[in-house]
Amino acid sequence: MNFSSKLLEKAVDEVSLLPGIGKRTALRLVLHLLNRPKSQTLQLTKALEDLVENINFCKNCHNISDGELCEICNNPKRNSKIVCVVEDVRDVMAIENTAQFQGHYHVLGGKISPMEGIGPHNLNIETLVNKVKNKQISELIFATSSTIEGDTTNFYIFKQLEGLDVITTTIARGISVGDELEYTDEVTLGRSIINRIPFETSLKR
Amino acid sequence: MNFSSKLLEKAVDEVSLLPGIGKRTALRLVLHLLNRPKSQTLQLTKALEDLVENINFCKNCHNISDGELCEICNNPKRNSKIVCVVEDVRDVMAIENTAQFQGHYHVLGGKISPMEGIGPHNLNIETLVNKVKNKQISELIFATSSTIEGDTTNFYIFKQLEGLDVITTTIARGISVGDELEYTDEVTLGRSIINRIPFETSLKR
Repeated sequence: MNFSSKLLEKAVDEVSLLPGIGKRTALRLVLHLLNRPKSQTLQLTKALEDLVENINFCKNCHNISDGELCEICNNPKRNSKIVCVVEDVRDVMAIENTAQFQGHYHVLGGKISPMEGIGPHNLNIETLVNKVKNKQISELIFATSSTIEGDTTNFYIFKQLEGLDVITTTIARGISVGDELEYTDEVTLGRSIINRIPFETSLKR
Repeated sequence: MNFSSKLLEKAVDEVSLLPGIGKRTALRLVLHLLNRPKSQTLQLTKALEDLVENINFCKNCHNISDGELCEICNNPKRNSKIVCVVEDVRDVMAIENTAQFQGHYHVLGGKISPMEGIGPHNLNIETLVNKVKNKQISELIFATSSTIEGDTTNFYIFKQLEGLDVITTTIARGISVGDELEYTDEVTLGRSIINRIPFETSLKR
């Protein structure tokens, strides 16, 4: 592209480094910044600077947090013995939005993926195993994504916990609420038959 | 959404004010910022701050510029008598990318659009008419978008120039290079027949 301004070019270059944003979109966003009051853009940049300068990760669960411990780990009403293992912060938010879980989380920071060069030692697995060893956890719920990488990660952690006194469970996989059977893929449908539950149980939900 | 951090929430709120970016995309972008080195994000925010603090608009053509005059107006090799009238900065870039135009530009800053509350006085039309009155321009090329608003804007300027000594032209509208006739809309195809040019002329391009 042919920029008439070095300042504009630099701004577009930086914005286009963000994921899913190409040069054209970056230019559109940057020109939008020039069309709105300067103070709004300075608020945006300040919010981003504050974030990267001051953000913490919870010492206990590795969730994003303003303080040493996150709001969830700090909440005395929540059950710290039941821990839900998730890949990243967005999964914590997704589960929190359901309002169905009152335990703690443990954020792995990704999943084992040899293709992307991510091994167990790149993830927050050791702190999790230590919590189990110190008998801080009675039930571990695996809530990673339903992919080969997610399953591998679960299995790796499960092996690390062998011989330790902890219940391990995994969130139910099955057809989504509102889905029609006809359009459900075979693997999901097959698993949902194998893992069927008593009808009385489903009524309680 | 259920944020565990006020800093994160504030950053997501600010980013989601950008056009075409919702809360989910904003969250994805902001979490990406947390996953890369802090210095990269500070480079991004610095580039944006520099831009809004220091950007100028060319005194002559209203194009974005680092100095008082933009690179195009400053270039002695370009013909200042031929002026291409465009809606915004992106149009200047688009025409510059063709490398087919060696004159100057005049950036209107939009088009007349009563629906959006944009009238002639919100656009850089007066400075353009003054340039013509001062005999600084011999040819004015209208290169606004091919919409009712674009045509209205052209017509408004054309009326303002009545009685003044200037040639007004408009860029050719017709079927795109590479287009098949069968799939071209009727209005475009109809106009391209009415505005046909000598075959010999087309050979020179």
